Amino acid sequence: MKERIEIGLMGLGVVGGGVENALREKAADIAKQVGAPLAVKRILVRDPSKKRTCQVQPHLLTTDPQHILSDPEIDIVVEVIGGESPAYDYIKESISRGKHVVTANKEVIAKHGFELLNLAAQHQVALLYEASAGGGIPLIGPLRHDLLANKISAIHAIINGTTNYILTKMALEDIDFTTALREAQELGYAEADPASDVEGIDAAYKLVILAALAFQTQVLLGDVYHEGISRLAARDFRYAKELGYTVKLLAIAKREDNTFQVRVHPTFIPDDLLLAKVNGVFNAVQIDGDLTGRILFYGQGAGAAPTSSAILADAIRVAQNINQGLSQIPQVRLGQTMTARPISEIETRYYLRMTVADRPGVLAQITRILGELLISISSVIQKGVDERAQSAEIVIMTHPAQERAMQQAISQMEKLDVVKEISNLVRVED
Amino acid sequence: MKERIEIGLMGLGVVGGGVENALREKAADIAKQVGAPLAVKRILVRDPSKKRTCQVQPHLLTTDPQHILSDPEIDIVVEVIGGESPAYDYIKESISRGKHVVTANKEVIAKHGFELLNLAAQHQVALLYEASAGGGIPLIGPLRHDLLANKISAIHAIINGTTNYILTKMALEDIDFTTALREAQELGYAEADPASDVEGIDAAYKLVILAALAFQTQVLLGDVYHEGISRLAARDFRYAKELGYTVKLLAIAKREDNTFQVRVHPTFIPDDLLLAKVNGVFNAVQIDGDLTGRILFYGQGAGAAPTSSAILADAIRVAQNINQGLSQIPQVRLGQTMTARPISEIETRYYLRMTVADRPGVLAQITRILGELLISISSVIQKGVDERAQSAEIVIMTHPAQERAMQQAISQMEKLDVVKEISNLVRVED
Repeated sequence: MKERIEIGLMGLGVVGGGVENALREKAADIAKQVGAPLAVKRILVRDPSKKRTCQVQPHLLTTDPQHILSDPEIDIVVEVIGGESPAYDYIKESISRGKHVVTANKEVIAKHGFELLNLAAQHQVALLYEASAGGGIPLIGPLRHDLLANKISAIHAIINGTTNYILTKMALEDIDFTTALREAQELGYAEADPASDVEGIDAAYKLVILAALAFQTQVLLGDVYHEGISRLAARDFRYAKELGYTVKLLAIAKREDNTFQVRVHPTFIPDDLLLAKVNGVFNAVQIDGDLTGRILFYGQGAGAAPTSSAILADAIRVAQNINQGLSQIPQVRLGQTMTARPISEIETRYYLRMTVADRPGVLAQITRILGELLISISSVIQKGVDERAQSAEIVIMTHPAQERAMQQAISQMEKLDVVKEISNLVRVED
Repeated sequence: MKERIEIGLMGLGVVGGGVENALREKAADIAKQVGAPLAVKRILVRDPSKKRTCQVQPHLLTTDPQHILSDPEIDIVVEVIGGESPAYDYIKESISRGKHVVTANKEVIAKHGFELLNLAAQHQVALLYEASAGGGIPLIGPLRHDLLANKISAIHAIINGTTNYILTKMALEDIDFTTALREAQELGYAEADPASDVEGIDAAYKLVILAALAFQTQVLLGDVYHEGISRLAARDFRYAKELGYTVKLLAIAKREDNTFQVRVHPTFIPDDLLLAKVNGVFNAVQIDGDLTGRILFYGQGAGAAPTSSAILADAIRVAQNINQGLSQIPQVRLGQTMTARPISEIETRYYLRMTVADRPGVLAQITRILGELLISISSVIQKGVDERAQSAEIVIMTHPAQERAMQQAISQMEKLDVVKEISNLVRVED
């Protein structure tokens, strides 16, 4: 039983400030749950003279990581610097020096989680990362503990608030991507350089983390196919609505026998799915387990306070175990040897929007290509004719088809004289 | 490190059969997560000769609880008998004999949880009860661990599948309560004696369990105000829809300073709330935390497989700890001394439907009563006139008002000659 459990906090940005603040304000409640005070002993910052909104005591600040890494009194390192470097090195060194680590770092966990978890097991310390996916929504905890008896067949997740905000705007206000993005930037929901969010990279990191736990196997970032939302147009949302669908950027992980697929892309999902009703910056993760059936977790996936909730929960968990003399927290054993299926091998339904010449026989040429590649069509709708350009817009919904075949069809159709543009191809999950 | 962790299973009904089945079929996966086999050594049943669907080995069955309670090799007792007696006695004796207990028993935990958790702490064993509320939805785990840093201000839960099925039917098919109940009974979603579900007693048990963890205080079953759904008529659903609301049986827990309120009753909730879109037998629990903001958990709240998921998760957790030499699992410290507020002291908005005489001055009499009791009206709608009976139906929506004042108003209005019937009073949560 330790008298006091000491934290070394690395990073004092938005999230770090939130953690420091919550630890201070909730000190009495946390001490009661842990059985001993849990306090920040040192804080690593880049610039100690920077003006900060949080009321941190100046003598806690340091610019030297060794003031945390080499301090034997520090039991838990909380890493909220973000980004791969130098956070990865600090986490690794903390573990090697026998310190427990709590991190919010999706990039480090997605890229190096497997190695770091093994290192932590070797050094008998905990490496917890609830805050790395889904902010304040309990996801890692439930996957590590509460759902452990399930064989999970699929995850469908809205796991990036920025893109969900943009897509919600586009759907409700009938506006185009660039307009919605600009509004999101003005409100601070999207960064000046929005690539990581908009291109699905942020979602890919989180998907790697969730899929590895769900399937109990190593998942590599390179296994994830990702496609952003910038090609979506206002009319895609209108057509989706007519067809009974909502457009979401989904992070999808599916298990089939001894293989899995992981992909992030705009997706048509049925309107009546609870997931379709998740709007704005909110996140939601839908999990299909063999015992639980379908469950869903919903909440705020980002922000200082929600992220602090996850970090503090992890820190309390570690501190409770330190206080009971247990050094190691049971980790999910990533024992399976499953292989990733590339996107070309998936089978799904497709929404295809294209502009074609407005003359007889065009549809015959297009449907022939699809037919020859065994892609069967569930509906074709001509959406509008531009008489001046002598062109028409058509929307095709397919039955389940192979991605490889679909891509071949696209490239063959692009070569047709009568096809002016393949405007969009969106995968459908029913 | 034990070679084998032994379970004594008490009860082999629908849930018990599901647990036995899942433990057998998933033995290899579970052993990998635990680090040792986790197997059922003995099963307590009432009638060993009963024909069963699960393929249990007959020599495991016993009718004598002492074959489990007195067996030193049994580490974990899994209690799925249900009901207060004799389950309560078996759980108590198991704990006293140093056995860990996993239970799905909402009645025992709601009535005796505080005492049993203290007994478990004293004997350094675990008492886990994830399956007692919300079936396969992780709720207890998140409240015990992942949300521990939050000050939770409110829980709004659809926590009884039977009533949610009936209410969904009534809303979608414009049918009355008795018709919807009969259909639910025919489909096996409601029992022959539906009182516990329909009167909100089942929901009250679960609310006690969730509120105690959320507020970290002792909550008594007697603290819960409960009111069933049988007074709801098809027209209440129609009027709710017109007003932008959905009718749900909600289990509500709210914290205010050092007091809390716990209540189960039909509730109008805004249509656009995610909770309003939870249909059929599904459950959902919405939690407001100071750090997380609003989160929601959704899934199947009953059934053999979902309940087994929760029980197995608890059993795995205990087994992992046994295997690491840790006897006790950190419990939420129920340290707060909070007092329950009776229903008469709550303040909420109300929907009031009544039949009155169709003649001038009636509304003046009614609004005078409300006004004198400081209940202000947000809208009054006359819904229909029965010319033969010379009566009219009116619907009143109030601004937030005191329950005590509202009940006084009702009893005063009932005495008016012009009031033929107070048909329904439904609380509104915005």
